[in-house]
Amino acid sequence: MATIVAPLNFSPVEDAEALRKAFKGWGTDEKTVISILGHRYSYQRKQIRQAYEELYQEDLVKRLESELSGDFEKAVYRWILDPTDRDAVLAHVAIKSDNKDVIVEISCIYSPEELLAVKRAYHNRYKRSLEEDVARHTTGDLRKLLVSLVSTFRYGGDETNARLANSEAEILHDAIKDKKLNHEEVIRILSTRSKSQLIATFNRYRDDHGSSITKHSLGKSSDGFHKALRTAIHCIDDPKKYYVKVLRNAIKKFGADEDAITRVIVTRAEKDLKDIKELYLKRNSVPLEQAVAKDTHGDYKDFLLILLGKDE
Amino acid sequence: MATIVAPLNFSPVEDAEALRKAFKGWGTDEKTVISILGHRYSYQRKQIRQAYEELYQEDLVKRLESELSGDFEKAVYRWILDPTDRDAVLAHVAIKSDNKDVIVEISCIYSPEELLAVKRAYHNRYKRSLEEDVARHTTGDLRKLLVSLVSTFRYGGDETNARLANSEAEILHDAIKDKKLNHEEVIRILSTRSKSQLIATFNRYRDDHGSSITKHSLGKSSDGFHKALRTAIHCIDDPKKYYVKVLRNAIKKFGADEDAITRVIVTRAEKDLKDIKELYLKRNSVPLEQAVAKDTHGDYKDFLLILLGKDE
Repeated sequence: MATIVAPLNFSPVEDAEALRKAFKGWGTDEKTVISILGHRYSYQRKQIRQAYEELYQEDLVKRLESELSGDFEKAVYRWILDPTDRDAVLAHVAIKSDNKDVIVEISCIYSPEELLAVKRAYHNRYKRSLEEDVARHTTGDLRKLLVSLVSTFRYGGDETNARLANSEAEILHDAIKDKKLNHEEVIRILSTRSKSQLIATFNRYRDDHGSSITKHSLGKSSDGFHKALRTAIHCIDDPKKYYVKVLRNAIKKFGADEDAITRVIVTRAEKDLKDIKELYLKRNSVPLEQAVAKDTHGDYKDFLLILLGKDE
Repeated sequence: MATIVAPLNFSPVEDAEALRKAFKGWGTDEKTVISILGHRYSYQRKQIRQAYEELYQEDLVKRLESELSGDFEKAVYRWILDPTDRDAVLAHVAIKSDNKDVIVEISCIYSPEELLAVKRAYHNRYKRSLEEDVARHTTGDLRKLLVSLVSTFRYGGDETNARLANSEAEILHDAIKDKKLNHEEVIRILSTRSKSQLIATFNRYRDDHGSSITKHSLGKSSDGFHKALRTAIHCIDDPKKYYVKVLRNAIKKFGADEDAITRVIVTRAEKDLKDIKELYLKRNSVPLEQAVAKDTHGDYKDFLLILLGKDE
């Protein structure tokens, strides 16, 4: 379930006018920006952008970029974009950075149709395919894995094949045992099978080998390939648990990892952030809001807490 | 341009009734089947199927399968299916056969959106992804190439990057020169770049090296991988020329290759078969209709000639 709270009746024109007023004069009235945008669903934010453009012949996204700064600006920028367009931006940033988690998340957590929508948005924005840009900025086994993951159009149905789960659990186990994790069979299985089938395979793995594939020595190796492989398995196996882990690692860090915190909160606020919050509390005995509040500041903090569903 | 001739005003109910009548009594009235179905566009054939189902609570496709036989049955069956569903069937047959041309055609000739539609049809029909079935029935370099080709969602725009065409023409040339055609770079380039970009790269290749990549010693090796690689390059470079070659080889064969003849005529009749016919004549100095008529017989021949646009 989602965390954000938005009015069903709202006026895009009034919101656009209020935002315009917030930009006027010296400094920006960030409180107004937060209280409006933090309480609107994506289709509402889209209508506000359109109303703002019509009223003032100005792109609201660009104006916000010039009015705000730092982590707060980044968070608002990611939030105000259409979700698929935002994911295209996040993927584009990740391709050039060391941290490819977003690429794996988009291809292993999103449904086949959602992944496709992001790939379309990527085409529109960058005039290239996500596949070719991932291939261009990676090498070796990491490239093989990531290109395969983003390329595929998985089957999205619930049917599973028990015999196949059995044989492919063995292939995965042998690959892990022999530490031949670059084995193309592992990449083939993870990138082509449906998520239901992969979960059946992971279940079979646990039944046959006494511990889950995520626990099993997937190698502590921290090179890009092994890291992406672990991330892919976690994302397919249990996305909410995965996001809790990302948030926990981001908050635990000396000097929190704001990009990761922003990413999870912004991308999940309209989807399942409520469930992620509950699981976070259960695992860490600290409410997520409290953990986030402790590690962030100012308008950025206020904005994240609104997205996390805080009552004003 | 298309070859088939269909009336703009037609009655699905009357067609369904006429077909029903053609099935009645001893033997089937094949002439009626040919003259109706051979003169209907795909949306019309779909309406006839629906009308037939409503009138007689019977699946027209199944009934045709039981009424007809041999190459004629195969051709009618492929013709009456929705185009994307037909391609899913063709792909499914090809996956298990030695000839993987269809897989390459679908991924290298079709637009990204058309390929996607076939993948959706494949999901609906087989409850699995095209990717996973291709991977399951191939091995080694052939698998790497085919899975990459069917997976990708290429950028479909016309923009090209001259610098990239230059550098990737060199990569392709080096790979061909060194006979290292299994090089993952070749697969990456062919499977992720947009078709416009690849054609720019092929043009650059010809300008720099004096002969086209299709002519250039792509190796005469006839193993599955090299064959599929040559097919992919031909399909991207010039689909019509490619189809002319397929038809010519199929007709030249001792005991014509009916599957290939049927495939090209059925899949292109509503698209560009007229252009293919013209090119065929230019290259072979024999009209395609004449060549097909010489190598086929009976109802099968009559049906193909109607699809080729013959006046009755």
